[in-house]
Formats: sequence, C-alpha cells, structure tokens
Amino acid sequence: MYEKKDNRSADNQPKLTSLTELGEFGLIDRLTKNVKYHHPETLMGIGDDAAVIEAGDKVILFSTDLLVEGIHFDLTYMPFKHLGYKAAVVNISDIAAMNGVPKQMTVSLAVSSRFSAEALDELYAGVVMACEKYKVDLVGGDTSSNVKGLMISVSILGEAKKEEVTYRSGARSGDLLCVTGDLGSAYIGLFILEREKSVFKVDPNMQPELSGFDYQIGRQLRPEARTDVRNLLIGIGVKPTSMIDISDGLASEILHLCKQSGVGCKLFEGKIPIDEYTKELAKEYKIIPSVAALSGGEDYELLFTVKQEDYEKIKDIVGITIIGHMTAASEGKLMITPDGKAIPITAQGWDGMRK
Amino acid sequence: MYEKKDNRSADNQPKLTSLTELGEFGLIDRLTKNVKYHHPETLMGIGDDAAVIEAGDKVILFSTDLLVEGIHFDLTYMPFKHLGYKAAVVNISDIAAMNGVPKQMTVSLAVSSRFSAEALDELYAGVVMACEKYKVDLVGGDTSSNVKGLMISVSILGEAKKEEVTYRSGARSGDLLCVTGDLGSAYIGLFILEREKSVFKVDPNMQPELSGFDYQIGRQLRPEARTDVRNLLIGIGVKPTSMIDISDGLASEILHLCKQSGVGCKLFEGKIPIDEYTKELAKEYKIIPSVAALSGGEDYELLFTVKQEDYEKIKDIVGITIIGHMTAASEGKLMITPDGKAIPITAQGWDGMRK
Repeated sequence: MYEKKDNRSADNQPKLTSLTELGEFGLIDRLTKNVKYHHPETLMGIGDDAAVIEAGDKVILFSTDLLVEGIHFDLTYMPFKHLGYKAAVVNISDIAAMNGVPKQMTVSLAVSSRFSAEALDELYAGVVMACEKYKVDLVGGDTSSNVKGLMISVSILGEAKKEEVTYRSGARSGDLLCVTGDLGSAYIGLFILEREKSVFKVDPNMQPELSGFDYQIGRQLRPEARTDVRNLLIGIGVKPTSMIDISDGLASEILHLCKQSGVGCKLFEGKIPIDEYTKELAKEYKIIPSVAALSGGEDYELLFTVKQEDYEKIKDIVGITIIGHMTAASEGKLMITPDGKAIPITAQGWDGMRK
Repeated sequence: MYEKKDNRSADNQPKLTSLTELGEFGLIDRLTKNVKYHHPETLMGIGDDAAVIEAGDKVILFSTDLLVEGIHFDLTYMPFKHLGYKAAVVNISDIAAMNGVPKQMTVSLAVSSRFSAEALDELYAGVVMACEKYKVDLVGGDTSSNVKGLMISVSILGEAKKEEVTYRSGARSGDLLCVTGDLGSAYIGLFILEREKSVFKVDPNMQPELSGFDYQIGRQLRPEARTDVRNLLIGIGVKPTSMIDISDGLASEILHLCKQSGVGCKLFEGKIPIDEYTKELAKEYKIIPSVAALSGGEDYELLFTVKQEDYEKIKDIVGITIIGHMTAASEGKLMITPDGKAIPITAQGWDGMRK
C-alpha cells in the first residue's frame, strides 16, 4: 500500500485514491488482481455474470448482487414487495445470462430500526413471489441491524450442462449481435418516477401522475428475468457464442462482450428495439430514445451473439432483434447512425458511482 | 399484512411490529414461513449453518454472512486487513460447521465515499490472505456505493460427500457434547478494545494499552475457522452426529442443537474450556468467565455431538473437550454448576440486535 515514494503528496502523506476517481470496473480490477485459484473445478471466477464451477456431469453457476437504499432504489416510490421481487430478479437474470437454470438463492438484509417487521414481510413476499415464478429455492440468508437504511444482498446458484454455458468471451468477428425484448423503458420509467418525486417535494398535496405509464414504470419497478430465452434458443437449435444481461445499459454491455471476446463491433442505431410509446415519451422529455437504451440500463434483457450461419434460424423470431455484428478488434467499437455516421461506443461507467 | 382487525392501535392504523421486539430468530422464522422448495436436490434449505444441495455424487454447501459497520465491527480498532480476513473466516467457519471443505467465495462491498481505494486494498488483502490459507477461490462479488458506512456480504460454497454432512438436527439423547479449542477469549478481547476506546475518547493523547492481551485481541480481530477438525475426526474414526459453529456464544448454539434435534442437554459449567489468562482477566473485569464463554460468541470454535460409544476415541484428543451430554427433551436444557446446581440455559438472542 505504501511502497511507492512518488505516490505522496506535499506533506509526505501517502496520496489516497478516491473510489469515484477509480469507478466500479477500475476498483474491481484493482482489488482482484492478486486473486489465484486453487481448485481445478473453478472453471470461471471473476469476470462474467456468474462464476462457473464443475460439479459432476454439470456445472454450478454462482453469482451475487447488492441493492443499497439511496443508490439502487428509492423507497419514496419503490414498494417493498416490488423491491424484493426486483432483488431476486436481478440475480436470476445473471443466471439467465450464462444460459443456465436458476435453482437456489440466499437473501440477506441489513435494516435500520426505522423499518417494521411488516415492511420486511412485504419485501420477503416479493422475493417469494419471484422464487415461485422462476422456480428458485430460497435456502438461506442473514439478517442484521444497520446503522442507516436498507441493504439487500442476494446470492444465487444456477445449473447448466458444461457445454451450454455462454461466456462473455465467446464472440467472434462476423457473429451477429442480438438483443431480446425492447430497451430504454426502464430508464424512462425511472425518469417519470423521479419527476413526480420532485413535483411532490415542491407541493406535497400534488397527487403523482403515473397513470398511462404502466409499461415504463413496471419495467423499472418490477423487471422480469429472461429465463425463457434459453429454451427458445434450444428450440430453434441456436447456441449463443456469448451472452450478457443488460443491467447497466446496452453500450456498457456491448463493450464488455467486445473486451472479453477481443473483438470490435458495428451496432446499428436504427435497429435498437425501443417501445413506440417509450420513444414518444423520451422525445417529450428531451431524451434521445437510443440514449435511453444505450445508457439507461435496468431492462434486464439479454444481449448475445450467434454465428452468422444461424441468421436464417433467428431472423424471424418475435422478440429477438439483430442489432449489428461483431468485427475485428482493429475496426473499433462503432455505432452506425441512420444517416451512416460511425460513432465510437462509450459507456458512462458505474451507475452506482454516478448517482 | 393488514388482515387482522384486532391488530390495530387506537387510531385504527395497523400496529407495526418493531424488529427489536421480534429479535433475529423471530424475524427469520416469520419471514421464511411461506418458503417452499421446488427442487429435489435442495436437501437442506433454511435452518442450518449452510444449505445443502445435491450435485452428482457429492453435495454443495451454500452459506452467506453479512458484516455491517457499527453493528459487527468498529473501524476505530479493527484494521481493514483483519476485517477482510474475519469476513472470509466467519463464512469458512459455516462450511466447517457442516463438516465440509470450503471451495469458492464471493465478496460484495457497499462503501461510502469516505473510504479510499487503499483502504479497500487492505480489506481485500485480508480476504485474499484467508483464501490462500484456507484454499478458497474468490470467484466474484459486487461493489456498490453506500450512503453511509461499510458493509461486507460474503457468500461461500463448500463441498462434502452426502454422508459426511453434519446437521444441527442429528443429536440424540445420550450423545456426548464436545467443543474444540477454548471459549470466551474473543469476548474478553472485545471488552479490552472497547475499554481502550472509551479511554481514548476521554483523552485522545492516551496510548491504548493493548500489550499483553495478544491472544484475546487476536481472537476478536483475527479469528480462525476450524477446518482442521474435519480431518482430525476422520483420523480417529469419529463422525459427529450434529455440529454448529460458535458465533453467537455457547449457550445460543447449544439451544440450536437441542431445538433442531428435539433433545435436552446437561452442560457442566466446570468443563467449559477457557484460557487461563482469559479467566484471570475476566475476574479482573468483574465478568464471570463462563458467562464470557456462554454469551460472548465470536470464538468460531465448533460445538458438536458424538455417540457415547465414541467416548474412548475422543476423550484424550488434545483440543477437544467433552462438556456434557444430550438428554431427553423432557429433561430440559440445563447447566450444572460446580456445586451441583442445575440452571436452565438461556440465550441472550441476537448479537446484532443487542449492540
């Protein structure tokens, strides 16, 4: 920690690095650089949506996600039941992103004394509802007091055959880039909720105007995990070459696939699937619709690549859109606008750090 | 949540239940009462030190623990490296308590901006040090901002043969009650650290007097997990009938074994192994030594039962002490004092709630 003399400020104290300066991905790289693996059954450790562990004739997928009050959710407009549901779903989505089947989950809570048992009942009811829907066994957890606020930590196990697992690193130049569902609505939902919150702050007698935005608000408050995609692709005989779930925004996820696969990409802006009403709302709010999709995040759709030869199998599947293709790394990571301009894709970094 | 009309206060609002009133175990029972399992491979869900999941010819053990600043640790006297080490160890201890071998771990952090990357480097160095020592692969995690303070959430996977796993529920009347190592020193270590902290608060120029208390302070700040006990017992041909690790204090853990096994017990106070110097210190601080062992917790030793017929095999093993035996449930859960009095064993409840 203190080994570099030149890393000192004028008063000869070690200069400390702020977390904001480093960002989430920089921090993870920094913290995990000394990690070594001892067990040959650890097939994938840090660096994908889940760790992959060999267990007999299959593999166990292992992932974890935190939700922190004031960072990931705002209890002003997030009902406890939705929060519990979402905490479960974001973890289930990580297993879907590995092309696995979710199986067991632990849910840990740190709660300050401002919360009642009834509030936690609701939160757990949401977790249990998601577990019922996605057939996941809630097998444990930990509960603790917290000095301030609410924090939810979920860990999940999934299962797959070894050859079924899709890593972020499997994309090759020429592969088609595909996405499920539509993007950007969760971000517009958040925008609407934040707007109504500020109106409420100015005049607490105002009733929030949320009617008519069910789809957008639902996408934000109660997302679903695309565990159905695995069977859909098995059904048409397509195995993705790489896959990731869209939690941070399309741009950031594409860059992950490119970096870990060692390829470039061409993304066609006009192909990005966005709900029509979300497009209208975005324009009304002076947000470029594709930016909501690229940077918004929290849609929990799946982004994946398939071999070019699978084009015929996949091109007419409802709910899957081909949005571009992978290229040689030297060609860069580009978005092609409808008028043919090539723009380098950049990510906004860590959602949690930004807010 | 609002179904019972009679659960309303005078103003006809639903009366809410405070978490302190409920306690940790009450809360867990309440939250998990609606949990159903979907997968036959989930052999044990909630209710033991780890969940047990069938995977081919072995089982996967799955557990998780939270450490929250201001509840579980105090950074005034807890160095980051020790904190990282301890966070890993308390999880490894859960796998040891199931008679398994720890294998993979995820570490998630929620950190406020008051922390530097260098502080987290130290914390991770402690985690990595524990992973090296116990041969555990650090395979993932999540990092997030936090509004206030530091929170560490660790999840762990372990492995065992199905027939090796020791549950809390396997103790039978007549079984011998055994404990590894010695107890109460972690509590005395905490007492010393808290005392020096209050001295420091009164006069910040005072230097803390910690020399001579290395064992007690080490037990508190840098505990070890008893993963060695598994092989020790295999070596002498003994399989525990039940097992639990001592995180909350001997009394609380004994009550868990009794409740889940449906038995009573006789614990002999005079047999509880306590370090001699810890005994002296306890007396000096006006703490009854056995109370430090019974209620202190955080020793991370193992409490287990063996069949009476294993007495000859286990009685002379250095580092294992027979402290009593299990009885019929109707005989109660009793501690026998050196002068022959029988006192019902009670637990203080949740450590986290108490502080």
